[in-house]
Formats: sequence, structure tokens, C-alpha cells
Amino acid sequence: MTNSDLYPTDRLAAAAKAAAEAGLDALLISPGADLRYLTGYEALPLERLTCLVVPAAGGGDPFLVVPTLEKPAAEASPASRLGIDITGWGETEDPYALIARRLPKTLGRFGVDNHMWAEKLLAFGRAIPGAEAALAGGVLGAMRMIKSPAEVEALRTAGAAIDRVHAQVPQWLRAGRTEREVGRDIADAIIAEGHVRVDFVIVASGPNGASPHHEVSDRVIERGDAVVVDIGGTTHDGYCSDETRTYAVGEAPADFLAYYAVLERAQQAQRDAVRPGITSEQLDAVGRDIIADAGYGEYFVHRTGHGIGLETHEEPYIVSGSTLALEPGMAFSIEPGIYLPGRHGARIEDIVVCGADAGEPVNKRPHELVVVDA
Amino acid sequence: MTNSDLYPTDRLAAAAKAAAEAGLDALLISPGADLRYLTGYEALPLERLTCLVVPAAGGGDPFLVVPTLEKPAAEASPASRLGIDITGWGETEDPYALIARRLPKTLGRFGVDNHMWAEKLLAFGRAIPGAEAALAGGVLGAMRMIKSPAEVEALRTAGAAIDRVHAQVPQWLRAGRTEREVGRDIADAIIAEGHVRVDFVIVASGPNGASPHHEVSDRVIERGDAVVVDIGGTTHDGYCSDETRTYAVGEAPADFLAYYAVLERAQQAQRDAVRPGITSEQLDAVGRDIIADAGYGEYFVHRTGHGIGLETHEEPYIVSGSTLALEPGMAFSIEPGIYLPGRHGARIEDIVVCGADAGEPVNKRPHELVVVDA
Repeated sequence: MTNSDLYPTDRLAAAAKAAAEAGLDALLISPGADLRYLTGYEALPLERLTCLVVPAAGGGDPFLVVPTLEKPAAEASPASRLGIDITGWGETEDPYALIARRLPKTLGRFGVDNHMWAEKLLAFGRAIPGAEAALAGGVLGAMRMIKSPAEVEALRTAGAAIDRVHAQVPQWLRAGRTEREVGRDIADAIIAEGHVRVDFVIVASGPNGASPHHEVSDRVIERGDAVVVDIGGTTHDGYCSDETRTYAVGEAPADFLAYYAVLERAQQAQRDAVRPGITSEQLDAVGRDIIADAGYGEYFVHRTGHGIGLETHEEPYIVSGSTLALEPGMAFSIEPGIYLPGRHGARIEDIVVCGADAGEPVNKRPHELVVVDA
Repeated sequence: MTNSDLYPTDRLAAAAKAAAEAGLDALLISPGADLRYLTGYEALPLERLTCLVVPAAGGGDPFLVVPTLEKPAAEASPASRLGIDITGWGETEDPYALIARRLPKTLGRFGVDNHMWAEKLLAFGRAIPGAEAALAGGVLGAMRMIKSPAEVEALRTAGAAIDRVHAQVPQWLRAGRTEREVGRDIADAIIAEGHVRVDFVIVASGPNGASPHHEVSDRVIERGDAVVVDIGGTTHDGYCSDETRTYAVGEAPADFLAYYAVLERAQQAQRDAVRPGITSEQLDAVGRDIIADAGYGEYFVHRTGHGIGLETHEEPYIVSGSTLALEPGMAFSIEPGIYLPGRHGARIEDIVVCGADAGEPVNKRPHELVVVDA
């Protein structure tokens, strides 16, 4: 079922090489996006240890250690195409000691996936005394940040799916319904339109729109409300969608309409500014300056965006202070917002892929305020 | 909306006291079940740091550090009832340094929640040089393991909800349908019957039933298949359900029926054996011995069960080698299984709460094999 182009078999060798260059003697990767990226195996995040071991180039072959009862699932996953050893451990064995015995005796520094649980990291620290723990994120984040053509296609598929959900939002958004009721309709549609998991549903109406990460509440939507709808899910292939549009239920307040026009201009300027070579902080400033010049600078309280792929939030982050230069294949959100505490808020968000000389938005919905019947 | 009995305000003081007794100078708790248990705040697990700091008793007041854009959500959560300081940090600030500055200068050892991401643990290690990182799980696991009456009631609610889903499974399980199709019906029902999240849906038919953690596949269910259905979700209150029943589509093979009877006997004996004082390994052995005596010992490849509460898998684990004695208020699964590789498998699972002198199953569905029309 999974598109095998998404998980080319040469990533383990590339990671082993990058680990060596980064001074890491081995990478220890627990379930999550890094493991899926390297092997295609979508392992359950359990207290029982599942761990991919990638010795630095020249240090031996990679291997996968899994609880015995997960071994059939691991062997049925795309990881089986890699030809690596898959070792099961029984309920009363110590998998950390098992891995430590198979690592080179001279191991000085190992890198763990950035989301490895503290209990696993500290257990490795005890099992491999004298070695220093570091993050594998420097190595793997750099690889994952540049999407392959198959990954870009997977992001386009996810973007089209969430576009189809936004296209239906005007049917559900009505004065008299609660945010939670609207959110339920949206969650159902996220699955129906081609995701396997709902990652988040924000329906932030009226004053709730001023809290960027409000989710849903029992607030009843009123005539004249602006409503921020920020939604996303994960597709069968593991790639994420994330798109925000702001709606008005009937006629929105004049002060809201004034800054919405500014926001729309800022977001478009940022989309248009995407190209190889522009830095993250420059791209952030393109929108922030427009919003600040219009007098709303203090109300744009977050960064412009985050990378996206096998996780909704990953590198590159589009944020003040980051001098990372964009490269073709990078995929990230452009989502400036303006939030007036206690009153209302607005955000517009698209996922954009940096191409050879411009950005390609994978979301195609119109950006103007969508006014729905109250 | 949330039942405030579930989050009594004295847990922070109890945790501070337990931390002092365990030799931890402070607890650092990132988003997840520990944070929700201590404060009622269901924070998003983001790369931006959210962290509850609980100094050991006598070391100062607890405080919560959150990204500025999450501050409205934190203040709207039950955490606001605790009267603790909630500090926001801006997009370009360093929250680890901010926390380190507020910790006692003499900090020797700090405990982090067991699921804290490696990137956060290592960042704290750099921000608090000279201090030793340990796990808070010893302290918090012991507290969370003993459920309050409100928590037991929440588990009963979750158990009844998943019972209602199992009651409908015979309608959906038919020869000619795929596991995935049946799984979709079950997932919809998990939400419809009173959960806010589907945690897992296992529909393991025929030979797939021999893989304990098989999820769903495109395998078409056939007449004569045994089908293991292991499902669970999280309720609005944050408590989890988890229940397994095994079904037969038409007439199951004779060898399957033979061991199913053994399994049913073993699972009932384990339910009947729950009482304060019995150890985890003794309870495990009660079922394992019955299965082994009948000649199926090598096919019961996993532990008997896991604790459950705000997480599907938490302490206590019912496993060989654990001398933990059960106490009233402990809640855990009893889920022996028998798996014949390449052929078929069976598992029966209930969540049981240890009472004053016996176990109370929160799941009430019958245990005999449910034969559905092919």
C-alpha cells in the first residue's frame, strides 16, 4: 500500500555517512518520524523499546531491535526491504544491554532521535557508560528538511485533501452552533477526504480567535464573529496537512476587516518571496514588516511558520533569528496572524514548497475572507 | 466541562513531598499524562517548551512556563485553579535558561517526566550544568498507580463506552469485508460511543491474529476465521479504554476452539485472583500456568497486562519478574493470549480495578467466543 518511492533504500547509508561527518559513532532511533523516514516502519510508540541502530559509516551494519511481539509487524513493514537484521527481545530481557553488546566497544558519542523518551535516553546512558549522548536531529533534520520529489507529491496530496475540507467549512459554520459541533464535522471530513488521522482542529470564534492555539470550546458562534479554522491530518503515506483560513459569520466588525486586509497582503508577500537563498529570518521579516508598518506589529505574536513533512512541526522554522537559507525541496507553512486580545483574531496559512526559483503552495484555496450566511 | 474531582489541587504538594523523599530537588514536567495528572492541563506536545516546575518540598512554589501563544490556553485550563504562577516566553527567548534562573542555585538532581523528549532533556542538562538528570517516574508513577474514586469512575465510564462498541462488532464482522473496512466502522463507533480520540484499532483475522500487535490490513475476512478485536480510545476526561474480544466468523477450526477454552479459563482465573497483596508476577503466573499446563505455554508470548489511566500503558505492569504487590485503586489489563504462528490467535482482555478484597472488571462483555454469521 505504501508508496515505496517515499522510502528509498539508500537513506541508511546516507545517515551513516552524515553521522560520521558529525562526529557521532552511532544513531539510536526510537519509534517516530525519524524511524519512518529511514526505514518506512511506522512503529508504535510503546514503553517496550523498539530501536534502529545505525553505526557511523565504517562501523558496521545497521540493525533493528524490536519487542518479539512486534517482530511480525516490523517484518511486514517496508523496513524488510532494507535487508537489515531484525532482532526480537523477550518480555524479561534487557534490550538496552542487548544493543550495548552489539555496539563498538570504543563508542564515544551516540546520537538519539530528538523525540526519544527520557526513560529510554537515560537507560542507554546507563547501558553505554562513558559514552556521551547527543541529538541525531542535526544529522536527520538536515536530511528530512530537503524533500524528495515523491515527498513533495505526498505533500501535494495532503494539501489537496485539506483543501477539500476547507471547501466544505462554509456549510457547517453557522451562528447558533458551537465550535465543538463544527469541529466534529470538520474532523469527520478530514478522515473522509483522505487522511488516516486527525492531528488538530482549531475552530476559534470571536474572542477565542485571539488565542492562536485555542482548539474548540462550547462557545456558541454568533452573528458577526470572525472564526479562525486551522486544521490538519496525516495521510496514509504519513505526510501531514495544515491549512488555516479565517471566516466571517455574517458581517465582521470594521476593525477586524481593516487588519484582515493587512494580513492578506502580508501573507501573499511572503508566499511571493519564497526562493532559494532567502533566509528564514528574511522571509519572516517580509510579513512582519508589512504588519508592523500598518500598526499591528505587537499583535503578530508568533513566528511565520514551521517545516512540515512526516511531522506537522519540523525543520525549517521560519523565525526571526534564523539565518538558514532556503533550498529547493524545503516545505514549510507561511502563517502570519493578527490577534487582538479579548476581541478577535485572524490567520492565513498555506504550506509552500521551495522550488528552483519560487515557492509552490500546495494549498489552493482563496485567501480572501470567506463570509458565510449567519 | 472537565470533572474537577479528577484533578484535586493537593497533588502538587504531594509530588513536592515525594520528590524530596526520593532525593530529587525539583521535578520538570513537559506536556503529557504527568502534566495533566498534576494540573489538569492538557498541553500540546510541541517543540516549543511547556514545563511545569515542582521544587521539592521546602524549595519554593511550583510554576508553569509556557510559550506566550499557549498562555491563554494554559490559563483557561484547570491549572488556573492551582493558583500557581504561569509565565509566558516569547518566540526568541530561551525557556531553558529562564527556568534555570528560577531554580535553586544548589540544585543537585532533577527529575523529568519519563516521556520528556531527548531534545528537551539534553537542553535542560546544558542549562543546569552540574546537576544530575533522573526520572520523575518513580515519584509520579507511584502516585498515578493508585486511582482515586473519581479516577475509578472515569475508568468505568471508559469501560462502558468500549463495551458498547464491542456490542456492535458482530454487525460489522462479515466474510468478504476487509479488516480495514471493519476497523473504520469500529473507529467511528469509538468516537460515537463517548471517546474524543481513537487510540488503536486491531482487527486481526485468521493468520494475522497470531501477531499480537497487528493493526488492520486489506486482508479479506474469510468464513471460518477467528478474529481478534482489540480496541481503545480516550474519553473527554482523559481516561483510556482498552478491551479485547475474539470472534469467529462462522465455524472456527477445531484446534482453535480447543485453545480458546483454555484461554477463557486462564483469563477468568486471573480476574478471580485479583486482590490486595498478590504480586504482579504471581498474577501473571496464575494464567500462564493454566496455559502452560494445557500445552500452549510457548504460544503465550507476552506479559499478562499493563496499568491504565491517563495513558493506555502505565504502571503497574503485570509481568513475570515484578514483585510489586497489588493495592486497592490499581487499575490494569488482564489479557492473556495464545498465538499459533501462521495459523490463528486469540486474546481476551478486561480492565480490572483492584478493590478492598477483590478485582472489579470495568468491562462487562461476555467472554465466550462470539460466533457471528459468515
